[in-house]
Amino acid sequence: MFSSTPQVRSLHINNINPHVKEAKYAVRGELAIKSEQYRSQLANGEGKDLPFDSVISANIGNPQQLDQKPITFFRQVASLMENPQLLEQEDVLKNGLGYKSDVIQRAKKLLKDVKSVGAYSQSQGAPGIRKSVAEFIERRDGYASDPEHIYLCGGASAGVNALMSVICSSPQTGVLVPIPQYPLYTATLSLLNAQVVPYYLKEESNWSTDVGDMRAALKEAQKKGIDVRAVVVINPGNPTGGSLDADHIKSVIELAAEEKLVVLADEVYQTNVFEGEFTSFKKCLRELQKSEANKDGKFDNLELASLHSVSKGMVGECGHRGGYYEMVGFDPEVVAQIYKFVSIMLCPPVVGQCIVELMVNPPKEGEPSYPQYREEYDTIFNNLYKRAMALYGAFQEMEGVECQPPQGSMYLYPTIKLPQKAIEAAEKAGKNADDFYCLKLLDATGVCIVPGSGFGQKEGTLHFRTTFLAPGTEWVSRITKFHKDFYDTYR
Amino acid sequence: MFSSTPQVRSLHINNINPHVKEAKYAVRGELAIKSEQYRSQLANGEGKDLPFDSVISANIGNPQQLDQKPITFFRQVASLMENPQLLEQEDVLKNGLGYKSDVIQRAKKLLKDVKSVGAYSQSQGAPGIRKSVAEFIERRDGYASDPEHIYLCGGASAGVNALMSVICSSPQTGVLVPIPQYPLYTATLSLLNAQVVPYYLKEESNWSTDVGDMRAALKEAQKKGIDVRAVVVINPGNPTGGSLDADHIKSVIELAAEEKLVVLADEVYQTNVFEGEFTSFKKCLRELQKSEANKDGKFDNLELASLHSVSKGMVGECGHRGGYYEMVGFDPEVVAQIYKFVSIMLCPPVVGQCIVELMVNPPKEGEPSYPQYREEYDTIFNNLYKRAMALYGAFQEMEGVECQPPQGSMYLYPTIKLPQKAIEAAEKAGKNADDFYCLKLLDATGVCIVPGSGFGQKEGTLHFRTTFLAPGTEWVSRITKFHKDFYDTYR
Repeated sequence: MFSSTPQVRSLHINNINPHVKEAKYAVRGELAIKSEQYRSQLANGEGKDLPFDSVISANIGNPQQLDQKPITFFRQVASLMENPQLLEQEDVLKNGLGYKSDVIQRAKKLLKDVKSVGAYSQSQGAPGIRKSVAEFIERRDGYASDPEHIYLCGGASAGVNALMSVICSSPQTGVLVPIPQYPLYTATLSLLNAQVVPYYLKEESNWSTDVGDMRAALKEAQKKGIDVRAVVVINPGNPTGGSLDADHIKSVIELAAEEKLVVLADEVYQTNVFEGEFTSFKKCLRELQKSEANKDGKFDNLELASLHSVSKGMVGECGHRGGYYEMVGFDPEVVAQIYKFVSIMLCPPVVGQCIVELMVNPPKEGEPSYPQYREEYDTIFNNLYKRAMALYGAFQEMEGVECQPPQGSMYLYPTIKLPQKAIEAAEKAGKNADDFYCLKLLDATGVCIVPGSGFGQKEGTLHFRTTFLAPGTEWVSRITKFHKDFYDTYR
Repeated sequence: MFSSTPQVRSLHINNINPHVKEAKYAVRGELAIKSEQYRSQLANGEGKDLPFDSVISANIGNPQQLDQKPITFFRQVASLMENPQLLEQEDVLKNGLGYKSDVIQRAKKLLKDVKSVGAYSQSQGAPGIRKSVAEFIERRDGYASDPEHIYLCGGASAGVNALMSVICSSPQTGVLVPIPQYPLYTATLSLLNAQVVPYYLKEESNWSTDVGDMRAALKEAQKKGIDVRAVVVINPGNPTGGSLDADHIKSVIELAAEEKLVVLADEVYQTNVFEGEFTSFKKCLRELQKSEANKDGKFDNLELASLHSVSKGMVGECGHRGGYYEMVGFDPEVVAQIYKFVSIMLCPPVVGQCIVELMVNPPKEGEPSYPQYREEYDTIFNNLYKRAMALYGAFQEMEGVECQPPQGSMYLYPTIKLPQKAIEAAEKAGKNADDFYCLKLLDATGVCIVPGSGFGQKEGTLHFRTTFLAPGTEWVSRITKFHKDFYDTYR
């Protein structure tokens, strides 16, 4: 790469870590940066010549930036965690501020566990919170979970980073990654100088996994000398919006058992499911372990790491950076290395850990805060569903656009077929056709979405990912109008 | 390394990332884990046979775990950030809860900037908070600072990780690291498979830097083909407790300018200074740039990254994971890669970012919260100083122990000379002599400190690091009594 900078410094673009340079992360890339510039132009009153009056960040799953209200119970507890002196004024809290008794009790319980949100916790996370997570998993799956196997982390991203950092031992290490995928996975593998072994999801069957394709990808990689050690599955899917059933999940686990692969199950959208029910990898694994299929014990030592997060679901607390992963079947010596790795960064944010606890252990029926919690939760869920369907409806009307029905997560990932002239115009501009389309959309409407090239797509196909988090539907009509104009221009 | 685990899994101790295995981080290592076991034994009533009734964690700078009270103003604002609905009840806040008007104003200002602490911020940190940090630096140093050069991060550790990840490009990359040092540096370089180029601090002159030694270490490394790119300085020192004056700092900058090294200035203890005044690397750099010494422009492009944190000082908000680094003189193309790197992890915890803002912009004289802030701040400072002096006094009485007078940070790092028999007993037990001593201390007294081997020390010398954060002085007498018994046993 050519750099115009004279070499007067220690660091320049040609001598820094090449693996950082190789990493790609389009979700916060060129388009996102440009959209932020538009936003600040508008905020400073310098945007009068722009053809739009607001920027719609449909590029990133950031609900509270888009006016989703936080769940009151969570934030009431968090306010007491931040200022425990308030607990000395229970009357004022209850009568003046409407804090219910369960809010106060929960804050006291959490404070007992973490002592102060300003203190480092254990590197693995506060013991009481890990216990609460284990109990949640047990209720969810009907199978036991051990708090010692739970690692709290600063958002699922930090968990993926820790796990991958231990898994990847050489440039020949490979990890099976779905295409399309959330680019954290390819970016992390780039940083670690390991190999992405792509397997393609089946768009025509709602972006489900095809274990035959996965095996073929694995075998091909092995032929090239790649030591494939793990398989990533994102369920519900990002960017696809697909949701896997138990049979698909079990097939992946069977493949992993046969080929001795660690399964990394990214389940951060587990409550964002519109069709059917979420089934966890952990539950499927335990069922397989109990089943006839395990008579030779082949599932006994399967290594599964399942990730969850407070950033998604109806919680949407991205800025708190909270999450956890449960590791089952791992070698204790390996776990000790993961422990050491995370201890170098000391501990995950403690308020984020508390939000994890609140997410996995929300108010129960009969408790004072339950009615409000239920109402807020359901409203968010229903709004997400409504907006997903509205967006899906709009896509069905758009020329050259095909979209799978929304099943889960916070995204739609339609295919777009662009007119030949548009593809030529993109080439002339030195851009991928989907990048070109998304850039034109942003410039014309202020709506920021992410081109399919940022997630991966089959050669010759084009997609984009949009969240359905932005309130209202006016912005959807911006897209449809732009799309029509775009087609008319390049037809 | 031998592993007893049969190879039934994908991962085992012999095939995972060797650089993770090599990394050492004693602050949270064997001793810390054992001390946590003692603590939970005592908590569960299973510790009746232990020769102590409490565990004293003097191994880690975690003030709020050791009963340091958070600063009220910070936590009042944070409680409103968590629950902005409280702002609709200003009367109750002011009259019922004693929140002052500046608390309320600050929360409103911060909320305007971040929108919600549950929303992702810009990857670099919220713009208004970065502006506040830049203004702080300007007030502190008397030289301008640009908010675009400020990167907020999840504690200084995350900043070091980002910077090192970009700097280290091959196994031949070297970074000058002080010995003794906070083991984050050596651990991070291990993880990145780069080379530690050690330079020794001068114990006899209060652990100051010696630029002659640094240059010699650099030259020796270069002779071995190591591409030395950066120099780390921790000031005030961890684990040493030393504090550098402007002349020492300027000498390091001169060396860096001559040898084209990035300077990484770890200044997280900048307010923990007991003797003289803290002087920042940034200020010294700007002075040199304006001086006659710069007539050939040799300081114009010096790359300096200065780190600060909410975890230390009188703030002590470790659990919030907040910090920042300012980068000056870096190539914009390199900065763009650092930006991309941090964007993969999305953003630092937003409450932590808010605590950074509060730290750098606390109540000012004349503002309603000022008197309480001042009182709390001064009390913490004075208690730290008193305890440092008490500990120093105790060390002066102990046989075979020599300690530099406390100048700054939160630690003392005495030399210990152990009787020959103790050294032999340690050898027999397969331990370093300092590890052996610290383990015996923990087993006998419940006081957890960190052996010098965790930070590095000159061949043939032995040290340990202890914080002076634990309240009271009873635990200090546990150490002196143990030490006497230890000597009597092995004399």
